[in-house]
Amino acid sequence: MNIDACKAALAHLDIEERDTAITAASRDFFWYSPVLKARLDHVVADFVVRPKNEAEVIEVLKTCYAHDVPVTTRGAGTGNYGQAMPLAGGCVMHLRHMDKVKEVNPGRVVCEPGVLLKDLDAHCQEDSGQELRMFSSTWSTATIGGFIAGGSGGVGSVHWGSLRDLGNIIRLRVVTMEEKPRVLEFRGEELARVSHAYGTNGIITELELPLAPAYDWTGIFVAADDFGTAMAFADELANEDGILLKIASVYEAPIAHSYFQRVKPHVGEGTNLVGLMVAPQSMDAFLTFLNRRPDCTMIYRSDDHDWPRHPGPVFEYGWNHTTLRALKFDSSITYLQVRYAFPEHRELIEKIRADFSPEVLQHLEAIRQNGKIGFAGLSLVKFTTEERLDEIIRLHEEAGALIFNPHRYTLEEGGRQHADPTQLNFKREADPKGLLNPGKMIAWDDPDWTYEKMYAYPQMRAAE
Amino acid sequence: MNIDACKAALAHLDIEERDTAITAASRDFFWYSPVLKARLDHVVADFVVRPKNEAEVIEVLKTCYAHDVPVTTRGAGTGNYGQAMPLAGGCVMHLRHMDKVKEVNPGRVVCEPGVLLKDLDAHCQEDSGQELRMFSSTWSTATIGGFIAGGSGGVGSVHWGSLRDLGNIIRLRVVTMEEKPRVLEFRGEELARVSHAYGTNGIITELELPLAPAYDWTGIFVAADDFGTAMAFADELANEDGILLKIASVYEAPIAHSYFQRVKPHVGEGTNLVGLMVAPQSMDAFLTFLNRRPDCTMIYRSDDHDWPRHPGPVFEYGWNHTTLRALKFDSSITYLQVRYAFPEHRELIEKIRADFSPEVLQHLEAIRQNGKIGFAGLSLVKFTTEERLDEIIRLHEEAGALIFNPHRYTLEEGGRQHADPTQLNFKREADPKGLLNPGKMIAWDDPDWTYEKMYAYPQMRAAE
Ligand SMILES: Cc1cc2nc3c(=O)[nH]c(=O)nc-3n(C[C@H](O)[C@H](O)[C@H](O)COP(=O)(O)OP(=O)(O)OC[C@H]3O[C@@H](n4cnc5c(N)ncnc54)[C@H](O)[C@@H]3O)c2cc1C
Ligand SMILES: Cc1cc2nc3c(=O)[nH]c(=O)nc-3n(C[C@H](O)[C@H](O)[C@H](O)COP(=O)(O)OP(=O)(O)OC[C@H]3O[C@@H](n4cnc5c(N)ncnc54)[C@H](O)[C@@H]3O)c2cc1C
Repeated sequence: MNIDACKAALAHLDIEERDTAITAASRDFFWYSPVLKARLDHVVADFVVRPKNEAEVIEVLKTCYAHDVPVTTRGAGTGNYGQAMPLAGGCVMHLRHMDKVKEVNPGRVVCEPGVLLKDLDAHCQEDSGQELRMFSSTWSTATIGGFIAGGSGGVGSVHWGSLRDLGNIIRLRVVTMEEKPRVLEFRGEELARVSHAYGTNGIITELELPLAPAYDWTGIFVAADDFGTAMAFADELANEDGILLKIASVYEAPIAHSYFQRVKPHVGEGTNLVGLMVAPQSMDAFLTFLNRRPDCTMIYRSDDHDWPRHPGPVFEYGWNHTTLRALKFDSSITYLQVRYAFPEHRELIEKIRADFSPEVLQHLEAIRQNGKIGFAGLSLVKFTTEERLDEIIRLHEEAGALIFNPHRYTLEEGGRQHADPTQLNFKREADPKGLLNPGKMIAWDDPDWTYEKMYAYPQMRAAE
Repeated sequence: MNIDACKAALAHLDIEERDTAITAASRDFFWYSPVLKARLDHVVADFVVRPKNEAEVIEVLKTCYAHDVPVTTRGAGTGNYGQAMPLAGGCVMHLRHMDKVKEVNPGRVVCEPGVLLKDLDAHCQEDSGQELRMFSSTWSTATIGGFIAGGSGGVGSVHWGSLRDLGNIIRLRVVTMEEKPRVLEFRGEELARVSHAYGTNGIITELELPLAPAYDWTGIFVAADDFGTAMAFADELANEDGILLKIASVYEAPIAHSYFQRVKPHVGEGTNLVGLMVAPQSMDAFLTFLNRRPDCTMIYRSDDHDWPRHPGPVFEYGWNHTTLRALKFDSSITYLQVRYAFPEHRELIEKIRADFSPEVLQHLEAIRQNGKIGFAGLSLVKFTTEERLDEIIRLHEEAGALIFNPHRYTLEEGGRQHADPTQLNFKREADPKGLLNPGKMIAWDDPDWTYEKMYAYPQMRAAE
């Protein structure tokens, strides 16, 4: 790796050389995990480059290839698993300048990867009353490229399922890391090569995504004394085919009282909360549904309330924002990512809750999976030791819940614990030197790995 | 009943007096059923009046009330159960002049009842790229008022569920049949009073409905040799959360070959057909889904085909248009309306098919019910006798399928075989003399009826 020669060759581009800025651009939200915090805190790139267009991306990749410099791509660095962190140092390629929206048509948009989710939505709304089908709860800070390469779904998944479901990405344009980088266009089955691949096998330079109609969603909080009542409320509401929702979250007591500062004055310690975004044309039907459930009380609706302090968008309580809010009050909190699949989802959650509450508090997001509503759990965990955390995960798995471990920085360990041959095969073609986001794909580094313990990337640069 | 005095009092309105026109305006598509054909063929009104606005509707109702003249409301008369037929004679109030679209907003429209579904869609499309969430397959001929008062769902129900599901109607404005007719506005729970009430307890003069985004849907036919393969294709596709559909129909062989004239050259007798409308932004994902199923072949897509004779819109093969097409070739065909509910739907259909094919051929429409995809069946039945038809129905019910009997002209017999207290109670208030669409609500005429045999309305006017 010849950093200096590489930097010199890229000197005409927008290069960041200030140490503090390089450090900042080398980190993401890995520190949500005490496990990752202990392992990645020192990680830092050698330099940061900010290409302005695809031609410059190609130049960066080609030059880094020539000098054997690793390249870790960065959208906004809001990932939670050290995804955007340069484990082996080298170059961070920051795509913030590539933020153009190129074309909006009925039901679809074409854009560059570096546009923020909120700016993309604003553009589509302005153009033709449309918006993304789904977005990460980091809507106001994250990029669309980072969401597709690093995310899994979010606000909107209650209607449209997950990002990886057929139809939620239309086309990706990808540059490879070779002597002569190639530019490829992926559709259909090929999308799985690079979506949720953490930029380990190609850089997305253009995206075509489906759109949904934009509505002036009403944010709602509903309170219930009983956890099962709150969970049933969200589940049954999400199963109402004529009521259009964008999010349906469930927060076990005392999450709302302990961690949701502006909600706290309106709830008790025993309040279980449901957070919702309902399309305005569905509000009458929602109120009808609500009135059938006297144990549930609407305590807030964004279009008509008297809360002295506005709580902000309801979705910024959901998905991984719940963890963020909890962390602000209690730095010993961490989280899990769980899948509770239909039809046993509610039963399984009740069982796990009986076993673990309050060490693990249930935070659920209703999502569609294979056409049925189930729950994604982003449970809040009171962290004690890594051993106990591993044990909690094991017990969840034994009970029948699927865990996506957010305390690991590799694709495999954060996913289904086995190599993804589609992604691996494409990496062989597209990144023969293994320079893209190194250390994130075990199958590349150590094909015989058995997943018995946490993987430690051997080439990780040591702290200085 | 004083017809002459009533007509005289309404003489300043648009009144139809020509016998042929009155006869035409007294009939609907009841003749799909040999059972109804035998009983209703002679039914005819005394006169037809065509109000131009709500004030004229009120005048008609008030005047008819004063003269004890029954009023049967007519949209376009495409109903299948004699719904719009004046069993006791009297007045047919035809709403075709009340066809104004009053207001289109994001996600909703306000309109009069007499506008045709296709005109309403065209208006919303033109205004802001929107369209109805769902429509009857009689889109080009039926009115929105008739659809809400007489229909149940249709093209769009694969995504949005049925008309009666919470959220698929926002508001109805209704005029009562009293000495002084009242004008009422219904929302939420109150909508059930008059939706699917056949105009027996109030006349809808204005509707507010939710809208969906309008797309240039691609019509598709997929062929499979095996029925189960075709059914699984439609079911699994409808469970793909990221692929946006408007319809997914299944036609057992040899329906396509025998009855779909312009499809026939492209299929064999043994071809099972799937009819689809796919949003253009979902076409790539659809093709990906298709390619995973080598036993299914796409034989037609509306945006790219070389069929010498265009088959017309794919939805005009589905819902009750299937029956219409079959009837054109074989006048002994009639049909059933069946509900096969998730999760046993496919198993139950296979069982029923094993018992009845080819006397009963499966025609299925994928629909969402309580959040899950199931099938509505509009099975084609080779009619022999009324006894055999009743037996087929009984055997379906015994097997666990829910039947909505289309060979009956009353609300109860076409539905769940019991009185609907919401509709009955509202009729007591809104139509104290029982003059609105008489003979259609058994609970009103004969509260102790036991449903052991087919109801025969005692006041039905005899043939002349
Ligand atoms: C509070 C909070 C809430 C969150 N909520 C959600 C949520 O609801 N749903 C969800 O899915 N995630 C969520 N996340 C995780 C993360 O925010 C999202 O995945 C986000 O969309 C990532 O976008 P980013 O621009 O920050 O990407 P980054 O963190 O910069 O990058 C993410 C990954 O993508 C790669 N990458 C970025 N751009 C490209 C490109 N153009 N080509 C190839 N690879 C690329 C990076 O190398 C990295 O591996 C949340 C995180 C936080 C901190
Ligand atoms: C080929 C074919 C296909 C069909 N497909 C479908 C389908 O996909 N889905 C479906 O649901 N139905 C279907 N039907 C049945 C019927 O076409 C629909 O319900 C249609 O929408 C009725 O509209 P219309 O204007 O013809 O109503 P009409 O037949 O005129 O009236 C229907 C009922 O509503 C009452 N009514 C009409 N207007 C009002 C009003 N303003 N206020 C109060 N009551 C009123 C009438 O008195 C009558 O009882 C089909 C019928 C045919 C013949």
